[in-house]
Amino acid sequence: MANERLFYLPLGGAGEIGMNAYVYGYGPKGRERLILVDAGVTFPDAAATPGVDLIVPDFSWLVQRSKRVEGIFISHAHEDHLGAIGIICSKIDAPVYARPFTASIASRKLEEFGVSPSALRVVSPGSAETKAGPFSVTFLKAAHSVPEASGLLLKTPGGAILHTGDFKFDESPVIGESMTAETWKSSAGTGLKALVCDSTNSLQSRKGRSEASVGPEIQKLIDRATGMVVATTFASNVARIKQIAEAGRRADREVVLLGRALHRMLNAALESGVISGFPRTIDSYEAAKLSRKNVLVIATGSQGEPRAATMQLAVGKFHGIEVESGDILLYSSKTIPGNEKAVLRVINLMARKGVEVIDDSAEIYHVSGHPNEPDLEDLHRALNPECVIPMHGEHRHMLAHAKLANRSGINSLVAENGCLVEFRKRGPIIAEEVETGRAYLDGFELVEPGDSVVGDRRRIAQNGYVSVVLTGRGRKRVRFDAAVATVGLPAKDAEELELHLEEIALSEVGDKLPAPLNADEIKSAASRAVRREVSEIFGKKPVVAVKIVYRD
Amino acid sequence: MANERLFYLPLGGAGEIGMNAYVYGYGPKGRERLILVDAGVTFPDAAATPGVDLIVPDFSWLVQRSKRVEGIFISHAHEDHLGAIGIICSKIDAPVYARPFTASIASRKLEEFGVSPSALRVVSPGSAETKAGPFSVTFLKAAHSVPEASGLLLKTPGGAILHTGDFKFDESPVIGESMTAETWKSSAGTGLKALVCDSTNSLQSRKGRSEASVGPEIQKLIDRATGMVVATTFASNVARIKQIAEAGRRADREVVLLGRALHRMLNAALESGVISGFPRTIDSYEAAKLSRKNVLVIATGSQGEPRAATMQLAVGKFHGIEVESGDILLYSSKTIPGNEKAVLRVINLMARKGVEVIDDSAEIYHVSGHPNEPDLEDLHRALNPECVIPMHGEHRHMLAHAKLANRSGINSLVAENGCLVEFRKRGPIIAEEVETGRAYLDGFELVEPGDSVVGDRRRIAQNGYVSVVLTGRGRKRVRFDAAVATVGLPAKDAEELELHLEEIALSEVGDKLPAPLNADEIKSAASRAVRREVSEIFGKKPVVAVKIVYRD
Repeated sequence: MANERLFYLPLGGAGEIGMNAYVYGYGPKGRERLILVDAGVTFPDAAATPGVDLIVPDFSWLVQRSKRVEGIFISHAHEDHLGAIGIICSKIDAPVYARPFTASIASRKLEEFGVSPSALRVVSPGSAETKAGPFSVTFLKAAHSVPEASGLLLKTPGGAILHTGDFKFDESPVIGESMTAETWKSSAGTGLKALVCDSTNSLQSRKGRSEASVGPEIQKLIDRATGMVVATTFASNVARIKQIAEAGRRADREVVLLGRALHRMLNAALESGVISGFPRTIDSYEAAKLSRKNVLVIATGSQGEPRAATMQLAVGKFHGIEVESGDILLYSSKTIPGNEKAVLRVINLMARKGVEVIDDSAEIYHVSGHPNEPDLEDLHRALNPECVIPMHGEHRHMLAHAKLANRSGINSLVAENGCLVEFRKRGPIIAEEVETGRAYLDGFELVEPGDSVVGDRRRIAQNGYVSVVLTGRGRKRVRFDAAVATVGLPAKDAEELELHLEEIALSEVGDKLPAPLNADEIKSAASRAVRREVSEIFGKKPVVAVKIVYRD
Repeated sequence: MANERLFYLPLGGAGEIGMNAYVYGYGPKGRERLILVDAGVTFPDAAATPGVDLIVPDFSWLVQRSKRVEGIFISHAHEDHLGAIGIICSKIDAPVYARPFTASIASRKLEEFGVSPSALRVVSPGSAETKAGPFSVTFLKAAHSVPEASGLLLKTPGGAILHTGDFKFDESPVIGESMTAETWKSSAGTGLKALVCDSTNSLQSRKGRSEASVGPEIQKLIDRATGMVVATTFASNVARIKQIAEAGRRADREVVLLGRALHRMLNAALESGVISGFPRTIDSYEAAKLSRKNVLVIATGSQGEPRAATMQLAVGKFHGIEVESGDILLYSSKTIPGNEKAVLRVINLMARKGVEVIDDSAEIYHVSGHPNEPDLEDLHRALNPECVIPMHGEHRHMLAHAKLANRSGINSLVAENGCLVEFRKRGPIIAEEVETGRAYLDGFELVEPGDSVVGDRRRIAQNGYVSVVLTGRGRKRVRFDAAVATVGLPAKDAEELELHLEEIALSEVGDKLPAPLNADEIKSAASRAVRREVSEIFGKKPVVAVKIVYRD
């Protein structure tokens, strides 16, 4: 058994916040049996990846070894942990393990990709172990900002690893059970080979706060409100939504849920038994008939998403509801980096209507779902693993997290996506570097960042595009016609420009060329001439594509 | 004289941070003589306005009345106050007034647009008044984050207005003279008709801090550093750059300036006499030979700009300089909303190289150049104007600013871009709403947001583009050939796709149609068919342009 090894290989999530996907392997080198923990997505950037629908990990490494995959384990129901489950399950045939709420959300994702939900195995947390080849996996209850988050205890003949998933300490999490630094101690036992641990908030120096601390603040705000209150938060934060709704009911307000994601999440929470009931809600059109002081709207769109309910309310009437001067908009959420401008757009539109906006800057109406620096320190000490491997964080977060472990005298290793970490007697080392990356879901297709398609779109968005079709006729000497189409150029008269560029292209290639033609030469001559001309006229250098068609 | 009026009309900057441009008018209605205060730009967003170089105010209203424009006054040298001076001066023939440093920067902008710098009139602040039709304009010294910022006192027969420009209170501004709430009092006198006032920081509740408070903190940081120190800040903040350089020299470090904007700004400061000297600097290649602990680099790129020095250092060697583990990167700047992701990219690249990054979150290595809430209150009280008109701010900032004035018992009016505010006996009212907006500088051309060009680029970036050229032949019955070019579609084989779409287009239009042709019908049929086919294959709906060419 000397050549058996235990390894950890992040395919996503290590060096970024989002797109979590972690492989663990155990067995003889090259023949290890594998499990995947989480299959998350990250969201495209309209400037860097225009037209892309979702960004997912490049699973090629795992897909090439699909026969050795024993199971896929989903820690919780956030998109950055399960959004790619449909994609990976359409490529790998392995059971998917998740707790009920998570399974309910995952089931929809599988259907979207035409995968039968029969791959799903609903598991219970606690003592029950799931066998997956050499792995014995136990789901450990965790507090987080979504129901039924879990740490995963992975036992193998080579030792045990605790993969935390996303978690926070919370002695009063509103939904689910409380969690402290000691909660996992008895399950994890002593001699953990590694603690692979959430790094999102490793740069936050004060202790994390409880979900329950938010409710009374929201209650005070709603109690003092005289107009309608609109509260927005993450749809998956069922505990928060419940607290907001309860505060509204206590203040004698009818509660309206605006936005499909809210209904979807609440239904999943009810079906899976995460919550047994929810305060009474009414239809938005009914609410519109009531006095404003008797209405509380909970709306999607805390990140300024252009189609979500909050933005719709900022620009006009939505499902019968209209905000007006004297109303309050509460952000019970934080703004995720990159969304600042979109959120400010909503805030200013609301301010223009006279709506008082309570943003997240005071940090009293929102708490994070991740462990802060002191929380991480407490966990490190409670579990005292042989080493800490920071995951789920940008490089700066993982680095800070590693230093934190060292301060408690615990070994640590920063391993980014693609670093295969082997756990050896003397500690973990990066044994191999595996090619990883991202893939773009573009309509129905998965494309690689290296494929030209997204880069082409970025280039034509910056510079415009000219298509030149040269139609050649004649056997011995070829006579050309040109047809030019332009898009995205600042021409006052596009037709006139196209006629002009047709002349430019033709005069460059000459209209009677001896056969056989050197197509590449003609194309590049025409392309250069057209590009130069556009650049001289407009100061822009478009992408030019030349096509030669031959008709005799 | 009863029908003479005094008005204020923001064309940009009121309802946004950036793109400042304010018109004042005095005279008989419809024949008022006009001045423009500031001609600033705002920066495009690669997602919303791809390919756009700059965004400038729509000056049409002013250009239509150019004969009545008596002068253009530039308050200070920031891009959002003078970046559009070249554009407006290429359309309006009027003298441009600015203090020496500002004039030096403005001169370059004029040249870029082929305008002779002879339009520039360099003025001195203080008692000297500039006559511009019925306006007597005095430049009042202000502290800010760029040399020679100025408030403008505008005296007219209809009363005096103080237009603050950007300013802050600072009793030790490092460069230039100190400023308190009282500084402008004697010039402004009593009975100001209006204070038109900077609102950028109206939501910041604590008092603003002095530029001089930053120096000692930077000194401490540099003193404790053992490796190379790279400090990045705004190139126009000459006082900051001077403080950083001095701290470096005191710590026995040679100073290197990386980035062209830094050299440009320092030269302007030296030429205009804003500073009389600057600590010794050396060439970057010389510095590269020294011990790391003896080098301080001041670099452009505090906002994560991809081509600026800081990003270049994050990705590799730049002008001989290379960062490594043990070095420090200091952000002596704030991150402007919208730039968060770009800045985080630099921070993580630096962290990966082992560089310690000191960001602006502790707020000790940077101070703002704008007045905070208590500062505004002090100014309101010191000047006690008849009314406060908030400017330079998003709606939420202007609203908070207006409320602040009201709290001190001063009348206020929130007027966004396009609101023509008439100052009447009983107070200011919005007398007219003028059509305003933005224009995009796109290569050499100015295009309007309503023009299709930028929208087209955004659409093709999202969805891809298909150009279809149908070439018809025959007199009585027309036979078609099709040539299709695609870009930005996730096809494995673009040529094969194009052949397929040619067939689709032809089979839809039929290849023999009786003349005369209904071109619009043919185009829309072909376009629909191609779009539907692409949508079925790829799940994307491209922009399709069909062109009919007739060759007999």
